[in-house]
Amino acid sequence: MKPTLLSLAAAAALLPGMALAQDPEYATLADTQFIFNTLLFLIGGFLVFWMAAGFAMLEAGLVRSKNVTTQLTKNIALFSIAALMYWLVGYNIMYPGDGNWIIQDVFGTIGPKDIKSEIDAGGYSNASDFFFQLMFCATTASIVSGTLAERIKLWPFLIFVVVLTGFIYPIEASWQWGGGFLSQMGFSDFAGSSLVHAAGGFAALAGAIVLGPRLGKYSKDGRVIPMPGSNLALATLGTFILWMGWFGFNGASQLAMGTISDVDAVAQIFANTNMAAAAGAVAALILTQVMYGKVDLTMVLNGALAGLVSITAGPLDPTLFGALWIGAIGGVIVVFAVPMLDKLKIDDVVGAIPVHLLAGFWGTLVVPVYTDGTSFITQIIGFFAIGAFVFVASMIVWFILKATTGIRVDQEAEITGLDMSELGMEAYPEFAKG
Amino acid sequence: MKPTLLSLAAAAALLPGMALAQDPEYATLADTQFIFNTLLFLIGGFLVFWMAAGFAMLEAGLVRSKNVTTQLTKNIALFSIAALMYWLVGYNIMYPGDGNWIIQDVFGTIGPKDIKSEIDAGGYSNASDFFFQLMFCATTASIVSGTLAERIKLWPFLIFVVVLTGFIYPIEASWQWGGGFLSQMGFSDFAGSSLVHAAGGFAALAGAIVLGPRLGKYSKDGRVIPMPGSNLALATLGTFILWMGWFGFNGASQLAMGTISDVDAVAQIFANTNMAAAAGAVAALILTQVMYGKVDLTMVLNGALAGLVSITAGPLDPTLFGALWIGAIGGVIVVFAVPMLDKLKIDDVVGAIPVHLLAGFWGTLVVPVYTDGTSFITQIIGFFAIGAFVFVASMIVWFILKATTGIRVDQEAEITGLDMSELGMEAYPEFAKG
Amino acid sequence: MKPTLLSLAAAAALLPGMALAQDPEYATLADTQFIFNTLLFLIGGFLVFWMAAGFAMLEAGLVRSKNVTTQLTKNIALFSIAALMYWLVGYNIMYPGDGNWIIQDVFGTIGPKDIKSEIDAGGYSNASDFFFQLMFCATTASIVSGTLAERIKLWPFLIFVVVLTGFIYPIEASWQWGGGFLSQMGFSDFAGSSLVHAAGGFAALAGAIVLGPRLGKYSKDGRVIPMPGSNLALATLGTFILWMGWFGFNGASQLAMGTISDVDAVAQIFANTNMAAAAGAVAALILTQVMYGKVDLTMVLNGALAGLVSITAGPLDPTLFGALWIGAIGGVIVVFAVPMLDKLKIDDVVGAIPVHLLAGFWGTLVVPVYTDGTSFITQIIGFFAIGAFVFVASMIVWFILKATTGIRVDQEAEITGLDMSELGMEAYPEFAKG
Repeated sequence: MKPTLLSLAAAAALLPGMALAQDPEYATLADTQFIFNTLLFLIGGFLVFWMAAGFAMLEAGLVRSKNVTTQLTKNIALFSIAALMYWLVGYNIMYPGDGNWIIQDVFGTIGPKDIKSEIDAGGYSNASDFFFQLMFCATTASIVSGTLAERIKLWPFLIFVVVLTGFIYPIEASWQWGGGFLSQMGFSDFAGSSLVHAAGGFAALAGAIVLGPRLGKYSKDGRVIPMPGSNLALATLGTFILWMGWFGFNGASQLAMGTISDVDAVAQIFANTNMAAAAGAVAALILTQVMYGKVDLTMVLNGALAGLVSITAGPLDPTLFGALWIGAIGGVIVVFAVPMLDKLKIDDVVGAIPVHLLAGFWGTLVVPVYTDGTSFITQIIGFFAIGAFVFVASMIVWFILKATTGIRVDQEAEITGLDMSELGMEAYPEFAKG
Repeated sequence: MKPTLLSLAAAAALLPGMALAQDPEYATLADTQFIFNTLLFLIGGFLVFWMAAGFAMLEAGLVRSKNVTTQLTKNIALFSIAALMYWLVGYNIMYPGDGNWIIQDVFGTIGPKDIKSEIDAGGYSNASDFFFQLMFCATTASIVSGTLAERIKLWPFLIFVVVLTGFIYPIEASWQWGGGFLSQMGFSDFAGSSLVHAAGGFAALAGAIVLGPRLGKYSKDGRVIPMPGSNLALATLGTFILWMGWFGFNGASQLAMGTISDVDAVAQIFANTNMAAAAGAVAALILTQVMYGKVDLTMVLNGALAGLVSITAGPLDPTLFGALWIGAIGGVIVVFAVPMLDKLKIDDVVGAIPVHLLAGFWGTLVVPVYTDGTSFITQIIGFFAIGAFVFVASMIVWFILKATTGIRVDQEAEITGLDMSELGMEAYPEFAKG
Repeated sequence: MKPTLLSLAAAAALLPGMALAQDPEYATLADTQFIFNTLLFLIGGFLVFWMAAGFAMLEAGLVRSKNVTTQLTKNIALFSIAALMYWLVGYNIMYPGDGNWIIQDVFGTIGPKDIKSEIDAGGYSNASDFFFQLMFCATTASIVSGTLAERIKLWPFLIFVVVLTGFIYPIEASWQWGGGFLSQMGFSDFAGSSLVHAAGGFAALAGAIVLGPRLGKYSKDGRVIPMPGSNLALATLGTFILWMGWFGFNGASQLAMGTISDVDAVAQIFANTNMAAAAGAVAALILTQVMYGKVDLTMVLNGALAGLVSITAGPLDPTLFGALWIGAIGGVIVVFAVPMLDKLKIDDVVGAIPVHLLAGFWGTLVVPVYTDGTSFITQIIGFFAIGAFVFVASMIVWFILKATTGIRVDQEAEITGLDMSELGMEAYPEFAKG
């Protein structure tokens, strides 16, 4: 035996391949995948962060100039509060098996100490996951602020955000993404048409009902009084920002890009997301021309956003043609739903309920057309389970706030504008009002 | 023999290197490169998408406030139409060997089914390539909208965009990037100084000639009446956005980053792109001070953009000093060309023809200084082949549109502004006009 | 022996693992790490580039409308000048061992030729490093422009930028990042709370002292006259842009992501950076409500930025709770420091000195709480070494400029606004002033 072993060693020295294999100079699959996956979360995360700026600009552009400072303040404050609340309690509620409770030292429980347990199979940095998931929580809150603009008090709104981002969103999101009953029954919501967008829309709807419409929005004889946004350039910028951020929102929801099939999935999601947005915009463009004889830019912007929400529940499986018609129908929904809401005297300043709740329903419903193993019934059940919970929970919070702090500024303040009455600071102090 | 084989197996168990080599735990080169290349397309793609927002802001800032809503509408609509048309026909025209024709199911022909054929040599996801290439098509259309602002009707413009993005751009781009005659004769246009920027510029030039100047732009006694942009903050924002997006435009045109030499090339392109933009801005800064005694911000912005266009045909090979002088001359071209166009009574509202067509010519021409295997003659032939085709094709489309739908709003509408006359919606309804 | 060797070869053919090991089909660690590290610099670099737009928008929003064009011009010009000067001399001053002097051909000395020497241990593209480092140099200059707004002449300011970006910043940055005496004594400033932010703040402070306050800012009876910013939507946009860019600023300062521990560090930095910003914003939100009875949006924006500056010296080691309190104290500092500066009659138009200098001191000081091997004494010494050098050097330059070109516009020009007096171009020419 010995001579054979010796000859083997000699042979190994002669075969460079075997020598190379012994070298530590190749990148291991586990390490490489860990890095790619983490990078996807980080890129996705900063893109979804950017959506917070998109909501801020969209809403600042669609409110009247006397309420712009307040709207900007709400947007930067709600994002910041979401960042604190999601860390303090939300993340643990959403992923109950993962960590300690309340005021965890997150770099203890989701940081380096856990790395070793993750590097085997498609691992990623827990900190990157936390960063990415936090952005979804904040997005849910961003949706609410637009609907309730121009009449809600600042602090009660921010208290609602505390509850929404610390509890309501994490609870319903855990039903699917935390491995809860929706995921177990086969509900499918890839990046959150229901879990994020419709949830935000339901919270906004509850608020709009409790809060009531703006003064003068609906005249006694049933007419709807237009209250045009003060800065459509900002609103358009906000839409482009949201569109850009959505590549991260949907694309990074693949949660991995360390294999060819994962990164190819991310690429298909990017292409589909873009297609749905474009189709939603074009649908609204054509439809407003046909229905009103004039293109309505705010409808085109909301059409693009509705296209994005529509594809969010299933951005991977449809063909590009699928993304096209799914997104286009989203755009159509918005054009019809905005006047419908006004008939119900639900005053949604920026159209967030049509865009996020109704197109969110559409996007959730349509998933089984392209995704195997899903059913329309389950999708409908899932949507309404989320909707009922968020709506009722939000209603309770809004009523408590109404009964305690009050949620609405007084008439004089509303007429003056919230910027002077609530904050004493105008957004455009030098520009004369026409 | 048997004992020897047994001893081999025993030896393998003793030599960890051989055991490792048998493990599937190393990342394969093909997979890793596929992921890196795809990621480059995705990052590049969202950065070039962002340029659509840049054009929208630049143009919204440089038109008068009475035309801002229309300009914003054109920009979001043209991008959306480009996304549809490039999918419907453009991509197949541009890469004729790759797929089926008309209304392909793109996730059939450019999606997962094709992956296996690509993973051998520097592969990438076809969906990521489609996503990236689409953005270049849309950019070409974005260039046109600025020149023709403040007087063109919305729908004829959008019909032109349909033809440009579905046919004109894909045809000329296929001459080079689809393996056509320009690539075969040795023409060199790395990221599209000619294929994208000058092409857009020629389409805009044709439109400007057919459309004629804005009312009152050129007085009877030959003076040029300044019509200052309504919001230079937006115009500056748009320029910064374009500058940022250009890192993706030029950098991801390397088409690969799965090797050290590829990613190093991407890095050099980033550095050169930044340098050319900075040099173009500084050149315009100094030149307007010297020529007019005052710095002209809009010239500085266009100087930066001209620097970017100038380096786009060859962003990899020049040294940083090369990028500096190439970009600086781009900036100089803009400062001289803007008044020259006015002498010719070609009314280019945002300066897109100097920036994209003339600096595009300069950038194309200068390639042989740093890039081996190219010639000035071939560069000139390529540029004018593209220019002649795009200009003539555009002229034909503009004339057909003029003869059928008409392309220009009536005088009263132009004086009132397109926002009220075409869309019935002002961008800044509350700000009094000074 | 021979038969044994033959049998080995036969066995190798039968064992696919051994054959694979001989294939060149695995990705090498050196290549993969080189690509990841370079990619980190590129992504970080374009994010920090984006901060230039953030400063431009923040400052354009916080000055009065009569000075907006000038402020925009300064911002795009200072970035462009920084790009030229850092290439021309700054990079070589900062990393003295690396290259040739003055007007190097950078693609000779930091380009492909050097690649081979770098691919062994955590290599990266030199061009990507240059691109990334350049952005930090430009950021330092961006900080100065806000403080000195509304009264400084354009060209003297730009000459100061030439000296700051070509010499002052590279010299002090070399003390730490170029391997100089600060790094040798154990000073710790991960991404530049002192080296970038406080340095910019000291240069601004020197300028503010030499320049004096704006006319009418401090009344004879000691009151501070508010001069509200003209466009808080832009200021908020600028803050969101800076916040986004800061992920690159801090995250890519890890300088590597080719290992699990590096990319996990980047992820933790992202999470901490976001937390500190959010905490700074919430602290300012609550504190202005408590102190003044009304939330002050500009304080909330500056609170977020102060949170970001505070975490910049040590974004990796703190827990998320650490980032929270470090950032929150940054926000508190701003709320107290802004009125304090006014008492000293130092007129800082955008609050850059509280945000960048004072929160920069706080961030530098607090490092030893979480980072092993650092000491409060060393941190304090390092901060004041940088501060003293930058302040004195800046003072000298400002005095020379004051004595030669003059640095301040005359009274009439200041009252008219710099846009008409210096540039002859208004930012919002059509909007009537209220």
